[in-house]
Amino acid sequence: MSDLEKHHRMANAIRFLAADAVEAAKSGHPGLPMGAADIATVLFTQFMQYDPTRPDWPDRDRFVLSAGHGSMLLYAVHYLLGSEDFTLDQIKNFRQLGALTAGHPEYGHGAGIETTTGPLGQGLANAVGMAMAERHLRETFGAELADHHTYALVGDGCLMEGISQEALSLAGHLKLSRLIVIWDDNGISIDGKVSITDSTNQIARFEASGWETVSIDGHDPIAIANALRAARESDRPTLIAAKTTIGFGAPNKAGSEKVHGAPLGAEEMAATRKALGWNHEPFDVPAEVLDNWRIAGLRSGQARKEWEKRLAAADAETRGEFERRIRGDLPSGFTDAVQALKKQIAADKPVMATRKASEYVLGMINEAVPETIGGSADLTGSNNTRTKQTTAITPEDFTGRYVHWGIREHGMASAMNGMALHGGVIPYSGTFLVFSDYARPAMRLSALMRQRVIHVMTHDSIGLGEDGPTHQPVEHYAALRAIPNLDFYRPADVTETLECWQLALESSQTPSVLALTRQNLAPVRETYEEDNACARGAYVLADSENEPDVTIFASGSEVAIALEARDVLEGDGIATRVVSVPCMERFEQQSADYQADIIGGGTVKVAVEAGIRMGWDRFIGNDGIFIGMHSFGASAPFEALYEHFGITSKAVVTAAKERLGR
Amino acid sequence: MSDLEKHHRMANAIRFLAADAVEAAKSGHPGLPMGAADIATVLFTQFMQYDPTRPDWPDRDRFVLSAGHGSMLLYAVHYLLGSEDFTLDQIKNFRQLGALTAGHPEYGHGAGIETTTGPLGQGLANAVGMAMAERHLRETFGAELADHHTYALVGDGCLMEGISQEALSLAGHLKLSRLIVIWDDNGISIDGKVSITDSTNQIARFEASGWETVSIDGHDPIAIANALRAARESDRPTLIAAKTTIGFGAPNKAGSEKVHGAPLGAEEMAATRKALGWNHEPFDVPAEVLDNWRIAGLRSGQARKEWEKRLAAADAETRGEFERRIRGDLPSGFTDAVQALKKQIAADKPVMATRKASEYVLGMINEAVPETIGGSADLTGSNNTRTKQTTAITPEDFTGRYVHWGIREHGMASAMNGMALHGGVIPYSGTFLVFSDYARPAMRLSALMRQRVIHVMTHDSIGLGEDGPTHQPVEHYAALRAIPNLDFYRPADVTETLECWQLALESSQTPSVLALTRQNLAPVRETYEEDNACARGAYVLADSENEPDVTIFASGSEVAIALEARDVLEGDGIATRVVSVPCMERFEQQSADYQADIIGGGTVKVAVEAGIRMGWDRFIGNDGIFIGMHSFGASAPFEALYEHFGITSKAVVTAAKERLGR
Repeated sequence: MSDLEKHHRMANAIRFLAADAVEAAKSGHPGLPMGAADIATVLFTQFMQYDPTRPDWPDRDRFVLSAGHGSMLLYAVHYLLGSEDFTLDQIKNFRQLGALTAGHPEYGHGAGIETTTGPLGQGLANAVGMAMAERHLRETFGAELADHHTYALVGDGCLMEGISQEALSLAGHLKLSRLIVIWDDNGISIDGKVSITDSTNQIARFEASGWETVSIDGHDPIAIANALRAARESDRPTLIAAKTTIGFGAPNKAGSEKVHGAPLGAEEMAATRKALGWNHEPFDVPAEVLDNWRIAGLRSGQARKEWEKRLAAADAETRGEFERRIRGDLPSGFTDAVQALKKQIAADKPVMATRKASEYVLGMINEAVPETIGGSADLTGSNNTRTKQTTAITPEDFTGRYVHWGIREHGMASAMNGMALHGGVIPYSGTFLVFSDYARPAMRLSALMRQRVIHVMTHDSIGLGEDGPTHQPVEHYAALRAIPNLDFYRPADVTETLECWQLALESSQTPSVLALTRQNLAPVRETYEEDNACARGAYVLADSENEPDVTIFASGSEVAIALEARDVLEGDGIATRVVSVPCMERFEQQSADYQADIIGGGTVKVAVEAGIRMGWDRFIGNDGIFIGMHSFGASAPFEALYEHFGITSKAVVTAAKERLGR
Repeated sequence: MSDLEKHHRMANAIRFLAADAVEAAKSGHPGLPMGAADIATVLFTQFMQYDPTRPDWPDRDRFVLSAGHGSMLLYAVHYLLGSEDFTLDQIKNFRQLGALTAGHPEYGHGAGIETTTGPLGQGLANAVGMAMAERHLRETFGAELADHHTYALVGDGCLMEGISQEALSLAGHLKLSRLIVIWDDNGISIDGKVSITDSTNQIARFEASGWETVSIDGHDPIAIANALRAARESDRPTLIAAKTTIGFGAPNKAGSEKVHGAPLGAEEMAATRKALGWNHEPFDVPAEVLDNWRIAGLRSGQARKEWEKRLAAADAETRGEFERRIRGDLPSGFTDAVQALKKQIAADKPVMATRKASEYVLGMINEAVPETIGGSADLTGSNNTRTKQTTAITPEDFTGRYVHWGIREHGMASAMNGMALHGGVIPYSGTFLVFSDYARPAMRLSALMRQRVIHVMTHDSIGLGEDGPTHQPVEHYAALRAIPNLDFYRPADVTETLECWQLALESSQTPSVLALTRQNLAPVRETYEEDNACARGAYVLADSENEPDVTIFASGSEVAIALEARDVLEGDGIATRVVSVPCMERFEQQSADYQADIIGGGTVKVAVEAGIRMGWDRFIGNDGIFIGMHSFGASAPFEALYEHFGITSKAVVTAAKERLGR
């Protein structure tokens, strides 16, 4: 059998596993796996450093299927390579409840899925983040320990999404030469030909951002190999524009949108078998083809063993540090550093905006935790995310620990996901809280994938003042609290900021948002306690001496308002308790008794927060008093806005007394 | 005085009004107005067809300040042109409570602000939508009635945001030759030089999407005029890359990030006055300069009068129809058409997915309301947004009424805002509900600007099945309900779908989302009633004969589950009422009595919705029973998912009985 024939049979194994699985599931996307099978075969059998016997090998090449609807490509490849996770049974159960083989690739559903994809464009930006993490580790630990490539397969849809521009322009700027993007240029999207909706010269577009580019026939294995070989040698990221036929091999449906997202049907399946000379039953891969794939799968074993030798040969400190970072454990000194700073804060009682508090805390964190990589979407001086430890990463030098992300909130959040998925670094970054909307699709995926990424989001309310309603979050607290497995923190002072930062770093399975003020805040807790009160999500900050008449719940900058109101109410003989609520999600994880104790006290319940009411009924009931926002904000100095919107201690006092009939 | 000197003094009037206002407000962005003053002067005094005496003239040129932080440019220009809204008093009150002169330009704060900007990139995409609306009206009504240009001034930040790629690639594809984008290429962003974060050749990038481009010195009035003149003649959209100095004229701070977003300070203000030879007090514009501006302001009066003559000369039907569309009134026959279809539905009792119901209803709407322009972000066959009336808009022919938006959810939503702001059309479009996250920044702005844009968002729950958690909305109901002045509808059957569509179209000040199912639903209401029950947001769908023991609240596809549960409970002698909740926002606008009546009934309250609990405590209290999602979804056939996540009538019955102790 010629090499070419051998290749075709190996590629056809992908095609039929994919088409058969879609057929059995009665839903799915056969078009991409059939069209990109040649690319995947060449990439995985000749280039990818990926050892299926050690799929968590830290120095493996990463492959991201950005066009996630083609998930069967990934499952088929990993079955063929010899994955323990992606067995034939799994493939037969494609898209069924409990199977690893979900409709779109789900991170955590088996080794080989480096990231969850499906929402278009995300995989490309994830890959940029992975390549950034690789390069940072390579320049930090040396090529002996980190020296691999990141490959991404993207579709037309990925390239039409705006996030693709943020990702590719950053990658070009940073000269991420180990990033190789293969564009499955099949010219078809769901509505028909791509030419119905887009006329962009993608090659020219990538070149405009400094990429190496090459155009090839995506069904020619020699051309694919040559392009990949050249791409690995480039000093810039490379786009391989691979012209393919969607649904390659299906005689009547290939090359059209009909084959994108629906089963081929029995008749076309039979015709495809005939056309490609594949005389095998559904899910049956002939032994000789499977053997060829399995041999290719073992190909990287030697490289992996050599890497292990290099790791073993490294000095103990380097090895230990590298392994710790890859495991994702925090350094042993972290807790002590937290406590030392906490004592200092209790002694100093600093009055500052929580964004400044965050900078102050980061000074400790970035010293104690060398794997943090900070950044900001062009708001460094406003987000206060940079400290003396974090020198800038530049195209020439990746030993730094600070990324000037540019005005690319979405790309930033998605690349941070890629950094976290890669491992060895803990990414945090900054923007204004209102622009969480721009980053939201990527933030959702971080929650779904259970990744430790930390978003410092400042200017967290009308308290930002004059910039006005376009810049003032109102609904964002609720909207972010709504995302499952995302912790939204709104600390009230420097101590709470420290505690929330500690929790965010210790949450290895949960992304975090820290919502921080522009305006100054006085301490709400003045004595040192080792215990992290914020860990319980909500806690009694100021109790009443007697059984409370009133409980006031508040977060962030409004805790001060609650305390002021308490002083007045207590002065008037009304027993008042203040509960600080830095994190509703953590509160929900406490015991029922604890929750009842926090929520239960007081006949009158008031919540104060400079956002909308949604979420607070959980604390105050649907008959509770809510002092907050009921509309968008406005442009004015912040003191005027708090007055204008009636978020004042006076409003709390008046409403509480009225309810009590006093 | 030479023409050049005259120009400089006119431009300097902008510079000093802006810098003085920022100085007085002690906050704001002097850099852009000072840098782009020459561009604005040439554009507004020589090119813009904009009559300050009739700023709502429908055929005026549109100007969008996409770099909205430079708001003082806009306020200064309109004051100088003779705006009735932007007086000197307003400018002196820049960024103060109640002033029209907000920190960022707010639509509705005075004529001349064509859209709210600030979140970067939005203005560019708005401008694309405006140019689309203009061309549609021009090709529909003729150039006698619609024949104008759309100008946008964008900054480096706008071009770094991903939405810019969606907008520019669409504009290039559609050959929007009346769109002229001026890039204020000052090379500075907040973190410093743009070269820190980006190396993109923007000219090459725009050319890759089919734009005409030209590079000029943005301080040379002749070059600016020549470029604008050429751009108006091009058969493609034009990018004018205007090299400028941020903060032009400030001797020590110009050309650096220091002048971007902070007052210059007294000393630098004095130095700038000296450098530019501007010997006038703050806010003082010499009479000769003001005269020159005011004369320029009157320049378009003649063009406007000629347009009015042409309108008067048009046949009565055309004129009436044009004026109706511009007013935004629905056609007189609309209500009758709604009622006729409602009767038909009551007679036919169709079982269908609400996405199909929407298509069915759109068949009536698109016939009765000729100003609708539909579309989909490459999911036409899934969103069911196209009907026989809506032929496709193409680069060659804009008489159509359907936009193949491509995979550009964010650009689509933002361009729809531009279309609505332009007037004369009612845009609606489609994507999957989960991808509302991609469109969210633009959706927020539609709510803030009170624009009638309608988002058809299908595949609205785990009911979409196999595509899995990346495609299954869970938190999106809450997240969208959280946005002020956005109506989120989740109809339960064909009749409710019709009612919600009617409400969305009749809400001229509020954007709407229609969340629609992929799976089939049976009718929940079978008899014709003229009254639009969905208008109340929540209503009793099935009452109990006796005082209810249980009230079940539900929306969309879960209303059927609620009705099933009611049958079982009533059969067991438990009086049960079902409340359909198609729109929580409308419910909040009802009288307190109505709300109490809806919420008050029943000792046990249950809510059923295939999303998270957030928002439902308002109905069921914090001790109510919630049957819904508590996590992300999963990939499986939808029936299996409803079982797996326990969203079943059995779960409702069991929980209600347990609570009742039966």
